[in-house]
Amino acid sequence: MAIAAPPTEPVPLGTVFAHELLGTMILIVLGAGVVANALLPDSKGKGGGNLMINVGWGIGVMAGVYVAFKSGGHLNPAVTLGLWANGADFAPGVPAGATTALVYIAAQVLGAFLGAVLAWLAYRDHFDREAPAGDKLAIFSTGPAIRSYGNNLITEVIATFVLVFVIVTFGQNPAQLGPLPVTLLVIGIGASLGGPTGYAINPARDLGPRIAHALLPIKGKGGSDWAYAWVPILGPVLGGVLAGVAATAFVG
Amino acid sequence: MAIAAPPTEPVPLGTVFAHELLGTMILIVLGAGVVANALLPDSKGKGGGNLMINVGWGIGVMAGVYVAFKSGGHLNPAVTLGLWANGADFAPGVPAGATTALVYIAAQVLGAFLGAVLAWLAYRDHFDREAPAGDKLAIFSTGPAIRSYGNNLITEVIATFVLVFVIVTFGQNPAQLGPLPVTLLVIGIGASLGGPTGYAINPARDLGPRIAHALLPIKGKGGSDWAYAWVPILGPVLGGVLAGVAATAFVG
Amino acid sequence: MAIAAPPTEPVPLGTVFAHELLGTMILIVLGAGVVANALLPDSKGKGGGNLMINVGWGIGVMAGVYVAFKSGGHLNPAVTLGLWANGADFAPGVPAGATTALVYIAAQVLGAFLGAVLAWLAYRDHFDREAPAGDKLAIFSTGPAIRSYGNNLITEVIATFVLVFVIVTFGQNPAQLGPLPVTLLVIGIGASLGGPTGYAINPARDLGPRIAHALLPIKGKGGSDWAYAWVPILGPVLGGVLAGVAATAFVG
Amino acid sequence: MAIAAPPTEPVPLGTVFAHELLGTMILIVLGAGVVANALLPDSKGKGGGNLMINVGWGIGVMAGVYVAFKSGGHLNPAVTLGLWANGADFAPGVPAGATTALVYIAAQVLGAFLGAVLAWLAYRDHFDREAPAGDKLAIFSTGPAIRSYGNNLITEVIATFVLVFVIVTFGQNPAQLGPLPVTLLVIGIGASLGGPTGYAINPARDLGPRIAHALLPIKGKGGSDWAYAWVPILGPVLGGVLAGVAATAFVG
Repeated sequence: MAIAAPPTEPVPLGTVFAHELLGTMILIVLGAGVVANALLPDSKGKGGGNLMINVGWGIGVMAGVYVAFKSGGHLNPAVTLGLWANGADFAPGVPAGATTALVYIAAQVLGAFLGAVLAWLAYRDHFDREAPAGDKLAIFSTGPAIRSYGNNLITEVIATFVLVFVIVTFGQNPAQLGPLPVTLLVIGIGASLGGPTGYAINPARDLGPRIAHALLPIKGKGGSDWAYAWVPILGPVLGGVLAGVAATAFVG
Repeated sequence: MAIAAPPTEPVPLGTVFAHELLGTMILIVLGAGVVANALLPDSKGKGGGNLMINVGWGIGVMAGVYVAFKSGGHLNPAVTLGLWANGADFAPGVPAGATTALVYIAAQVLGAFLGAVLAWLAYRDHFDREAPAGDKLAIFSTGPAIRSYGNNLITEVIATFVLVFVIVTFGQNPAQLGPLPVTLLVIGIGASLGGPTGYAINPARDLGPRIAHALLPIKGKGGSDWAYAWVPILGPVLGGVLAGVAATAFVG
Repeated sequence: MAIAAPPTEPVPLGTVFAHELLGTMILIVLGAGVVANALLPDSKGKGGGNLMINVGWGIGVMAGVYVAFKSGGHLNPAVTLGLWANGADFAPGVPAGATTALVYIAAQVLGAFLGAVLAWLAYRDHFDREAPAGDKLAIFSTGPAIRSYGNNLITEVIATFVLVFVIVTFGQNPAQLGPLPVTLLVIGIGASLGGPTGYAINPARDLGPRIAHALLPIKGKGGSDWAYAWVPILGPVLGGVLAGVAATAFVG
Repeated sequence: MAIAAPPTEPVPLGTVFAHELLGTMILIVLGAGVVANALLPDSKGKGGGNLMINVGWGIGVMAGVYVAFKSGGHLNPAVTLGLWANGADFAPGVPAGATTALVYIAAQVLGAFLGAVLAWLAYRDHFDREAPAGDKLAIFSTGPAIRSYGNNLITEVIATFVLVFVIVTFGQNPAQLGPLPVTLLVIGIGASLGGPTGYAINPARDLGPRIAHALLPIKGKGGSDWAYAWVPILGPVLGGVLAGVAATAFVG
């Protein structure tokens, strides 16, 4: 993503908006979907396990990055802000800047909301069955295994630092693997650092679906746990910006 | 698949037919095979789990796409119709059109039928053991976890929309990953959206093997559930066409 | 593998022998190793499941193909004979022929023997523990889930046909993925068609380690099941040659 | 890694140090993290299984190799010494030599130490829960399933031989897959040869985190098993050097 590219046509902000929105929507329909498959009653993937969940999220990122090619496939405000802190362009033809960052973030949150609605539609009969309210919420947004805001925040900072720090270094390597490394990286971060908080590592991934959870008529849903909602926003932002700055200093 | 390529030799329809038939046959022998391995009594992969099943289907697509290179490796009427709706060629040297679409679809259904026969041959001793009739049918064709035709249709529309929409965008990215992204995409759609209906996302994948189930002398088989058979045909067609149109409008 | 390449230096037969031997040795140390890890008492991967076993075999093939680059990384008499039947060179600089085929096959069987010895060395303390003799044999060579020589043979023919038919088509696709597609293909064939016989799909993979099983001082080992040994030799040879011929006729 | 490259700028030793340190840190935060996720009480990935653990370690290597691009991404003294024994450069612009090797190794051990500290921070609440002291140690460093120093050493020699021997051959193949083959190779070695000792295959990966275990205030921790610590140092060094020498002789 931080690749020095030949001069390219500027990408209009409307295109950036559409690409980020659709890419994040695809990410979340697959990401929320895999949790629904693993948790909801009578689903064919019920009990499919942690590795299946991580694979679903990783491939969700892959699919979203393909869809959002013209905007660079951030799909994540922590990536947008991390690249900005790194001094990189947002994408070929999309220079960094405050207005543009806002367009990215708005599209990401809205796309994540829509993706969660689609996942709910796809699993509607299963949502109508009896299941713990916490499981139904877990399909939409993250929550801590052990509630402890300070430590939960640290976990999100570390996991997002790894995500953005490594993404920034992808451009060093000449191998043309497209969205494959970030796909694997997300699977790996989920497997390795997802234990305590479910690895939001992306404020839009958590906030958009949490709003969907609050608004949709989900049978037997409990609260949307707004008390926790700031952790998966602040943690990823801190981790992403820290990674962008650190990458500038140490990796270049 | 929607890549603008240099002018190429036209591919004869007979080659298209042979490639799609053989490619879909290979897809289904691996796809039906992995379900047989996970479900049939005494099979070494018995209970191998949902992720193994999705991996088997994804790699089935990979293998089929390699085999069906000259026809573009659709293996799926929803892809053929989605590309047509998108305005793309079916493959380099294969312009879209009604006759050609029929050749694709006939080859896909016949290839899927043959692949299912091969999978049955490979697991013949295991089919002869006692097992629920529903498990034996599930090796051939999809069925709903919760029967509800309207919602089952919606699930298939959404899952196929994701498949075709993302496939159409593969051409945007310069990375030359061949059949790898679609392999992963199918694994991901299975893991994420396969819970309610078993993700046909492909009318040929469902219809051809269902016909094989009806015709083959499978011990202790029940009915072929023809009441459901229209869902995995109509849903993928709607989802694929919708994705082709949407991609034209929003991603280009 | 069937790629038309620019004229290359001839590869000496001694190099072919060394590369195939070392490549197959690496394949089998990883392949036999993963079964040992899943089956032997007190091993950390005990009960790791069918997908883990298939992943171990697939990556074994990947590693072996890298090592055996100059000989084309067959690692398998069924591939050697299938390419010969297909009319392809064995590798760039290695034209097909009877003597050369014998060199390939001898190196593959010897390499497989040595790989099995290494896997036994790596798991020696675990082999010394009590375990069913059948499990100890399963680390070395394949066996049927349901003994039925005719059907077992058919299963091996079908699985090897898929392997070699798809391998021959890899050369059609311009994507430069090196040993990655065959890695995934082996994982997929294992997941999909490994249920009835444990997918030898390779006479050397089965025979070399079976000889090692017969010779090594393995504690509490039973017989080496020589009655079955012809199935994983004849089946893969038939399947591979059939695939080579079919690919010439239908895919080109 | 042993690719003959065009003349490149020399890489300063300070850059080598920073890249190896950060790359190994990223490797270990993901590698120690995935074991924590699988073993610690109340973690969302608890019981995620052996394949998940191997995937986490493999992707940890991928991420670390991307980060440590300028130093060639060794992340492992056995790789550094194996390349030296092979006669290869350490990386483009980094000729092999004793001082440089010491810089690599010091950075690797320090980076591994820091990565283990980060993993502990990410899982701090879970470390505070009751769990067997052996599980808590297993997050940091490796240990034998069956204690038998001679055989444990042999296992580490064989596993590291496979790692380094295959890595050295990557350069033969023209496919530009970047860090992907080594990612898969580590997953495969873990699945196949990790059963007896947990596959250190890397002295820094074991020693750095073991020091962290000894120093950190981990609740309910037992001893750091220094009696075993020499095995995952000596075994990988022997295996790596042997592989480098063997590759020179047989593969070139």
